[in-house]
Amino acid sequence: MAGKIDARLAELGIVLPSPPSPAANYVPTVRTGSLLVCSGQVSAAPGGQAVKGKLGAELTLEQGQEAARICAINLIAQAKAALGDLDKIKRCVRLGGFINSTPTFAQLPLVMNGASDLMVEIFGDAGRHARTTVGVAELPSDAAVEVEAIFEVS
Amino acid sequence: MAGKIDARLAELGIVLPSPPSPAANYVPTVRTGSLLVCSGQVSAAPGGQAVKGKLGAELTLEQGQEAARICAINLIAQAKAALGDLDKIKRCVRLGGFINSTPTFAQLPLVMNGASDLMVEIFGDAGRHARTTVGVAELPSDAAVEVEAIFEVS
Amino acid sequence: MAGKIDARLAELGIVLPSPPSPAANYVPTVRTGSLLVCSGQVSAAPGGQAVKGKLGAELTLEQGQEAARICAINLIAQAKAALGDLDKIKRCVRLGGFINSTPTFAQLPLVMNGASDLMVEIFGDAGRHARTTVGVAELPSDAAVEVEAIFEVS
Repeated sequence: MAGKIDARLAELGIVLPSPPSPAANYVPTVRTGSLLVCSGQVSAAPGGQAVKGKLGAELTLEQGQEAARICAINLIAQAKAALGDLDKIKRCVRLGGFINSTPTFAQLPLVMNGASDLMVEIFGDAGRHARTTVGVAELPSDAAVEVEAIFEVS
Repeated sequence: MAGKIDARLAELGIVLPSPPSPAANYVPTVRTGSLLVCSGQVSAAPGGQAVKGKLGAELTLEQGQEAARICAINLIAQAKAALGDLDKIKRCVRLGGFINSTPTFAQLPLVMNGASDLMVEIFGDAGRHARTTVGVAELPSDAAVEVEAIFEVS
Repeated sequence: MAGKIDARLAELGIVLPSPPSPAANYVPTVRTGSLLVCSGQVSAAPGGQAVKGKLGAELTLEQGQEAARICAINLIAQAKAALGDLDKIKRCVRLGGFINSTPTFAQLPLVMNGASDLMVEIFGDAGRHARTTVGVAELPSDAAVEVEAIFEVS
């Protein structure tokens, strides 16, 4: 029996990937109290497409937005693995967005919208989050985008 | 009837701006439990001055400090909009400071002091916070500084 | 009477430094509810070795890992100063790792493992944390690595 959020994902045509495993001594999520703290997820779908490179250089704005969207899907896949049921998510509290950028690429919020929009498409008003977006010198495996999240959960 | 923190702001000659609205699918603040999580605020006063550019290049240390102070004022304006009454702030828990920097500008903490000092001027000991300061490749709209915050609230 | 974690530190041959004092209007740690929020610690042992410079330029991967390990030791020293007894740590919830990098150094997770591995060596399963790792343009005093932490405490 699929939950409401599973149904919404199906409606949007989103298939959650098997969530990527951390390659080291950390874990994808930690629950503390009512918060689910999620490790930064990069713009690489496990076994699928990876968006690598820098905004302001080889990537277009649209590619950056798609990269941010992949990060958000990975975050939701991690939350599903941790919670079992995505309907336990009461609120997306915060997204932190790190964009792999040249020192002159200032359209960072437009890139990050790829992640923010997805959260609202899926969770509605409960997907509206606090957000910090910055452009960084480099990301793991030269990923284009990395996004971390905190969810309030029941 | 103004609260204690409103009175302190007046004493310091600080007029809070109308808080900037996010231009996308996110919100300025999210409350979860006793925490108010605030989106990163950049060094642009709504309808007013904006401090743009990089530390280590076109900006002086003093301009960077002023930029950090503007971010902190924007954070307090957002907290006021969320809480109604700034006296509900029990503690500034954490500031995250992102400085738009060249790869050789290492005086980042001195820049961030513009935000930290303001929190202590306004809230006294309750303004003393944990802090992380880093220099990043670029910030939204080429802002000089971006600061995010977590407050403990009643 | 030393606690269990103190005994484990001794077993690993780790001597905690006197924790570095913030040089400004912030504090090393803030407790809010069951969370201990720790300020970013850079790769400089107080009165001892400092690892400075950029990964991808003058520093080797091994030097970066050692830098991340120093940050983690500083975080534990700060937690000890705040809590008195490290056995009060129930879980390392999250580490945020900022690596001073050139724009092409993508082995950032391997650097950050220096911090993550130490947490697990010391706290065992309770040391497994959520993690975000990014490469930044510059860090305070040109430190090679800066790591921040959130612990769940009793």
